[in-house]
Amino acid sequence: MRDVAILGIGLNKKWGELWGMSLRDIFVEAALNALDDAGVDHFDSMYVGCMTSGLFVGQEHLGSLMTDYLGMNPVPATRVESACSSGGTAFRLAFIEVASGISDLVLAAGVEKMTDVSGDEATYALSAASDMEYEAYQGITFPGLYALIARAHMAQYGTTRKQLAHVAVKNHRHGAMNPVAQYPFEITVEEVLNSVLVADPLHILDCSPITDGAAAALLCPLEMARKISKKPLVKVLASAQASGTIALHSRKDLTRLDSTARAAEVAYKMAGKTPADLHVVEVHDCFTIAEIVVLEALGLVEPGKGGQAAESGLTALGGRIPVNTSGGLKAKGHPVGATGVAQVVEITRQLRGEAAARQVKNARVGMTQNMGGTGGSTVVHIFEAV
Amino acid sequence: MRDVAILGIGLNKKWGELWGMSLRDIFVEAALNALDDAGVDHFDSMYVGCMTSGLFVGQEHLGSLMTDYLGMNPVPATRVESACSSGGTAFRLAFIEVASGISDLVLAAGVEKMTDVSGDEATYALSAASDMEYEAYQGITFPGLYALIARAHMAQYGTTRKQLAHVAVKNHRHGAMNPVAQYPFEITVEEVLNSVLVADPLHILDCSPITDGAAAALLCPLEMARKISKKPLVKVLASAQASGTIALHSRKDLTRLDSTARAAEVAYKMAGKTPADLHVVEVHDCFTIAEIVVLEALGLVEPGKGGQAAESGLTALGGRIPVNTSGGLKAKGHPVGATGVAQVVEITRQLRGEAAARQVKNARVGMTQNMGGTGGSTVVHIFEAV
Repeated sequence: MRDVAILGIGLNKKWGELWGMSLRDIFVEAALNALDDAGVDHFDSMYVGCMTSGLFVGQEHLGSLMTDYLGMNPVPATRVESACSSGGTAFRLAFIEVASGISDLVLAAGVEKMTDVSGDEATYALSAASDMEYEAYQGITFPGLYALIARAHMAQYGTTRKQLAHVAVKNHRHGAMNPVAQYPFEITVEEVLNSVLVADPLHILDCSPITDGAAAALLCPLEMARKISKKPLVKVLASAQASGTIALHSRKDLTRLDSTARAAEVAYKMAGKTPADLHVVEVHDCFTIAEIVVLEALGLVEPGKGGQAAESGLTALGGRIPVNTSGGLKAKGHPVGATGVAQVVEITRQLRGEAAARQVKNARVGMTQNMGGTGGSTVVHIFEAV
Repeated sequence: MRDVAILGIGLNKKWGELWGMSLRDIFVEAALNALDDAGVDHFDSMYVGCMTSGLFVGQEHLGSLMTDYLGMNPVPATRVESACSSGGTAFRLAFIEVASGISDLVLAAGVEKMTDVSGDEATYALSAASDMEYEAYQGITFPGLYALIARAHMAQYGTTRKQLAHVAVKNHRHGAMNPVAQYPFEITVEEVLNSVLVADPLHILDCSPITDGAAAALLCPLEMARKISKKPLVKVLASAQASGTIALHSRKDLTRLDSTARAAEVAYKMAGKTPADLHVVEVHDCFTIAEIVVLEALGLVEPGKGGQAAESGLTALGGRIPVNTSGGLKAKGHPVGATGVAQVVEITRQLRGEAAARQVKNARVGMTQNMGGTGGSTVVHIFEAV
């Protein structure tokens, strides 16, 4: 296996409700930005992460569509779907294709156009990440599922609503410094607690939004990157993926994310790193409680301490281990298929020292954690500035 | 890169309208059949090919769902989508993962549950393989698109309706010998020509049906297969994938399938084979005209000669190069995400000498060609008995 580096990264200019752009427009903008950043005009293969363009805009076959609109035929292109971890999975497949020596330049990209449908339709589309027949069709959707996780965490560990709110407050503070973010403004704990209750104990400001957006990263062998790149290089140290029960009711402990714990274990081993070695981390905060249980599963804090981590400032910029400096899914937005690749974009910016106001000082090692549904699938990557 | 072999294959028992089975049931049946055939009870990773379970049954996140229902957590699993070539693409990714040394036992599987929706809904779902905004939303669906290809072929080469019908007649003759087939009965040229006209010149019996079905193949390193398998071994000689324009109107010549020609070129080179070396081939006959233009793009017949190939018996069992001995998409059925893997299952049976009444004598080298939409994507694999 060859060492793999990130040669270029890109997002579309602004995430949010993009009424004037279609799915393909958003994707092409992000992909071309990544090629510009890499300083190349072609690639050998592409993976497109997207959860449910079928339900959101009635379009499948995205590998073909996007290669065509990028003017890259006959380059092979494959759309991959793993619910909200589709982007991370696309990145992993691109990594495997470069590491194995099959291709040199592989584009990992993700996209989701979510705002062309009604709120009800979006809720239905997103529910397709759950066990539809045994969860959504019985009446529970994602805010409800994560509310159950939050309730269990509160009962088991004494986690408070205020601690949940602190996750959102921190991520909005970070997101306010990210020009791409859908909601680049600060909020307060009081605002979270006084916002509309969606699924007790989760308020609307505990939830990530519906977002249009795309992200792309161009991978190549590290040796090639050394020759052609003029930017600081970021090496992919580890790539790991794991599955967990798709239905929340199948788990013995609602507060444990087995797929994330497993993927992290494999990734730490592959990278030769421990949680203490990480300088900056992007995790899947689709709801505030998600960031809490993810940090515990990654071993960044002890079980039950995830709520305190946000409250104490441990995971804020300037704290011991800054989490979601991009603003996270909460403030930056959550175009589900793009999120996993956008996490890689943020970590690459951090490890290159290009994160401007939200730069983590001396960041050399970073991690991304991207998951589908309530943790039915997780992809973890570890990166190092080289 | 390691040599890769097929250790096990499986389909669900019967393809067709499976009212009593859900998406997951069909998938699990095929996957367990492949594990039984392989003689192993586990795997290290899985790829699930499926085109649009979101639009057909409201379920995404199939990697997680199917790993869970197979009792295989925390094994990594990824759903891949490339319209009607989703299955072939899943097989290709499994091949890459084994060849690269990342995993030893990888399951490539595909599934589609298409009959839970109305005919109109199915037509809409399948249209998502085209350029929805510029094709389907303007009023043309797949029978119409392939009818345009057929018209162009008739005008350019003098291909006749009768020659189109001969493709269907041949594939039904083969399918009548396949117990899994949805329509295991013979038809006549007259029946095709007298059947309902769908999109001139294509009659209903020129079209593949709506099908529920699943297929699976377990891959492993050839060296491992030599140690643990008691069955004749089939080696994957080549895997190639290419993209073409997603919209038919973007092509200079409607009768040429550039993505198939390109993938075939790469595959022949990788395998060190020529069209003359092939003993049995499974191709993507979603419509009769498709088999004709595919055979030309693969170099099995000269451009314009695809219609004569069926009429003359060249591509029938007993002919020079038997095509679609399984019955093809036409008679066996076309559960779109499963089709590409089912083609591999048939070629494996042929190269193992297990194809019973439809066995091609002395078949040693075989090919599969699986494509999405009107050829926006193609995956080609070449196999050899070793």
